[in-house]
Amino acid sequence: MSEAVETILNEVTEHIRPGADERVAVKTLTELIIKKVNSKAASMGINARAISVGSTARDTWVSGEADIDIFIMFPADISEHELKEKGLLLAKSVSDRYEERYASHPYIHAYFRHGGREYGVDLVPCFAVKDATSLKSAVDRTPFHNEYVIQKLSGLEDEVRLLKQFLRCLGIYGSEQRRKGFSGYLCELLILKYRSFLTLLKHAANWRYGERIDIEGHGQYRGKDPLIVIDPVDPRRNVAAAVSSYSFCRLIDAAREFLAKPSREFFFPKEVKPLSESEFRSILKDRGTYFVILRFKAPDVVEDILFPQLRKAESSIRRLIERNEFVVYRSDVTVDEGYALLVFELLVWQLPGIKKHIGPPVTLRKHAEKFKKRHSPPFLIENCRYVVELKREYTDVMCLLKNELQSCSLGRHLSDVVEEAGYEVLTPEELKLTPGICSFFRDYFGNS
Amino acid sequence: MSEAVETILNEVTEHIRPGADERVAVKTLTELIIKKVNSKAASMGINARAISVGSTARDTWVSGEADIDIFIMFPADISEHELKEKGLLLAKSVSDRYEERYASHPYIHAYFRHGGREYGVDLVPCFAVKDATSLKSAVDRTPFHNEYVIQKLSGLEDEVRLLKQFLRCLGIYGSEQRRKGFSGYLCELLILKYRSFLTLLKHAANWRYGERIDIEGHGQYRGKDPLIVIDPVDPRRNVAAAVSSYSFCRLIDAAREFLAKPSREFFFPKEVKPLSESEFRSILKDRGTYFVILRFKAPDVVEDILFPQLRKAESSIRRLIERNEFVVYRSDVTVDEGYALLVFELLVWQLPGIKKHIGPPVTLRKHAEKFKKRHSPPFLIENCRYVVELKREYTDVMCLLKNELQSCSLGRHLSDVVEEAGYEVLTPEELKLTPGICSFFRDYFGNS
Repeated sequence: MSEAVETILNEVTEHIRPGADERVAVKTLTELIIKKVNSKAASMGINARAISVGSTARDTWVSGEADIDIFIMFPADISEHELKEKGLLLAKSVSDRYEERYASHPYIHAYFRHGGREYGVDLVPCFAVKDATSLKSAVDRTPFHNEYVIQKLSGLEDEVRLLKQFLRCLGIYGSEQRRKGFSGYLCELLILKYRSFLTLLKHAANWRYGERIDIEGHGQYRGKDPLIVIDPVDPRRNVAAAVSSYSFCRLIDAAREFLAKPSREFFFPKEVKPLSESEFRSILKDRGTYFVILRFKAPDVVEDILFPQLRKAESSIRRLIERNEFVVYRSDVTVDEGYALLVFELLVWQLPGIKKHIGPPVTLRKHAEKFKKRHSPPFLIENCRYVVELKREYTDVMCLLKNELQSCSLGRHLSDVVEEAGYEVLTPEELKLTPGICSFFRDYFGNS
Repeated sequence: MSEAVETILNEVTEHIRPGADERVAVKTLTELIIKKVNSKAASMGINARAISVGSTARDTWVSGEADIDIFIMFPADISEHELKEKGLLLAKSVSDRYEERYASHPYIHAYFRHGGREYGVDLVPCFAVKDATSLKSAVDRTPFHNEYVIQKLSGLEDEVRLLKQFLRCLGIYGSEQRRKGFSGYLCELLILKYRSFLTLLKHAANWRYGERIDIEGHGQYRGKDPLIVIDPVDPRRNVAAAVSSYSFCRLIDAAREFLAKPSREFFFPKEVKPLSESEFRSILKDRGTYFVILRFKAPDVVEDILFPQLRKAESSIRRLIERNEFVVYRSDVTVDEGYALLVFELLVWQLPGIKKHIGPPVTLRKHAEKFKKRHSPPFLIENCRYVVELKREYTDVMCLLKNELQSCSLGRHLSDVVEEAGYEVLTPEELKLTPGICSFFRDYFGNS
């Protein structure tokens, strides 16, 4: 068994390790851009210098997935405003085709052609602070991460690549809000801790909620996340803060599965066809549940802002549904072709025309008298409380959602969109089954 | 207002106080029976003596409701067996028509004609213990209650009658299990405490759960009942232990209503017609809920044994229904024409064909592995636990009740009956609407 694992991992490594050509191309392009930025800075009289960071700087990228990260470092004593202005100016001046993006502050995502391929390059202005605990902005930590990893990781790069590829196939690689998985830096730290992909899996298979890893033994973080990996360059920070309990459990589960039955399929999953329309209809029929889909124009914000708002809206609407005594079985959110979709699957979607309205305890005289004035007899008594039977406002969940969405807290961006452009409440029959939707539902039903 | 109350109470008192003829008749008959018992005892060589107890002995009965209670007192040093044998023999020897009944031990309920009327008379053997705290049987306390009340109550008898009549109209007079209301002795103690019906109501209107009344200031009772009235002759006993929280709240509610708007209707409620069949059908239609009625032959036991078992079965079946994710709106039990009926009103009585089966936390490796062996993929992860989707056993509540009643704890007597004679699961359409059933449903829907 153990030999088989080694064989598999070696084969996979050969496959995902960048070849000589790719390495040379990435290295040449990176140096070219750095030189360009630095000479532009000099000619524009800007005190700044570019450095290469991220997986390409640390040799931990997976072949074919190279994203070049260039940080443009400014003195820590200039203003936020000056950083933004001069940083973006400089970044744009070296790029032919680019777009402005936004994380904790704006940066440039540019496209460079090189050796017959196109590379995406992030050009990120930051402050050159004196250490990672005296940040002026969240990105200022990155150069310290870079230095730390380069110093310590030497020789373990292939293990990091295995982990990244493994997580990518599970759908939990990347710390962005849509995914809430493991960032590249987190992968590097996990390998630094356990020294190999296989040892990491053996430990992960036994992880408990709140698992704590503190390589430098200096942690001051007191949060209650599923996984806590103290940042070696900042004792107050959990590098795994973005890892959802789902991603955490998914890794644990996959670690056990792989250890029990190692296979290269974990690294190259077989293509799963999206659901066909007839498969989709037949699954719905078998389940016998009722789907309601809320659809509206996705607001024009980045996914890292959009997804938390969709999740918030999802749980707010779920509470609305449950407050009205319908029963939600499962729910999920997705974004597809410019639309945000909130999907609710219900066990109970229609209810009788009456409902119980539970009043105050009979013994609380003031409240009791108010209640009896406000309502009409008969007054029932249940569990020492007055109860009256009222007409139910909504006997159908469609009706509820068509009328009461405004009463939910949807978050600013969603509220604006819903107010301006409205929203639709759809049944699956009314939903256009795009490839994105079909693939969403394949995952929803369990991608097997 | 206050004058109006006095007028009402005086009028009612005149109406419910027994007249001279009734008093003479009750007194004569009581003395006659006592004399008969005592002389029979002497002739049979039995060491026993009869005394008159209860409301007729204390002059607290409501006109037309006289139940004569005769206790036959035996020396405390004879055996349980001897008491039962000789007591019943003696009681039967003075009675022409009687039946044997059973409370804490057997007694005779006899019928005597006197002055053109028939009277029910309880003939109860008991031990003449030295005080109420050294009982040999629960009924041994009664002679002490009798003595205490006769000594203290003088002059307040009409107030007791008002209270009894008030409670009777509310349906909460009597401590038997079907009713779980206020016993006659409890009524007398409440009047002893507050000295008048009206003062009692004024206090009851402000009662809190766990209200404690301890006339002799010697209570040692530590239970958590809604109402606690320490027995003046036994500090360890709560005379109000049988009062359900419903009866407790009902009195509080009615006290406030009466004080706010005094009326003789509280003492002579207008006749309410039982529901007609068409009214019944139309109410069901308006509610839109679903009724299921379980019916089986009532086992041949007294109501005080039957009703607790029915209540137990009700909550056991309710749990069965809810475990299967149907939603019970209300439920109740009744006995009618030899049948026990358990009535369940449902908000949700049909469900889709799938259900979630929630497994162990992903992090508990042993349990997780067992779970994954037992079930088939896909394994979803929700809230850090494995979840599989299974076929729902029962998608219809009728089917559930027809198949799974045996899995409920029904109590010995009900189990026996159900096993021998079976049970029916009925919809309201299949239910024969006897006068008893119609009157039950009138109460169920709120008797207005």
